[in-house]
Amino acid sequence: MEETLTARFATKRFTTGLDFVNRIGASAEEADHHPDLTLTYPEVAVTLSSHDVGGITSRDIDLARIISEHAAKLGVTATPDHD
Amino acid sequence: MEETLTARFATKRFTTGLDFVNRIGASAEEADHHPDLTLTYPEVAVTLSSHDVGGITSRDIDLARIISEHAAKLGVTATPDHD
Repeated sequence: MEETLTARFATKRFTTGLDFVNRIGASAEEADHHPDLTLTYPEVAVTLSSHDVGGITSRDIDLARIISEHAAKLGVTATPDHD
Repeated sequence: MEETLTARFATKRFTTGLDFVNRIGASAEEADHHPDLTLTYPEVAVTLSSHDVGGITSRDIDLARIISEHAAKLGVTATPDHD
């Protein structure tokens, strides 16, 4: 099983989620490191992992920090994960 | 268990996937009917359902047709689902 960093964000509106996904996408392209993103009506889920090493690296930590900054700018908050 | 329409599309490139997600997102907003979209490096997964009735309705069929049109324009093909 691969180690991952996961987070869910309560975007509440689909358009906010789409905006968030685009900002994350631009940062992912810049970093050449791509998370898995799930966009649903009320939230966006993000999963980060470095597939080449099958676990979490500084690339994931760095991108997670950038994603948190995008969330803060959009007023989007992470939701507790009950999975 | 809720009935859903699901499809996976081999986008191959993250930026193509992001473009596809944006086109689907615009059509979803227009239809006021929102699929679940998962964007990963090589593919986009789409799940459609009418949550209010817990199944598939004409809204899902209509949006699925539009999504197929977006895919065709981007040269993206659906991949067989082995789930």
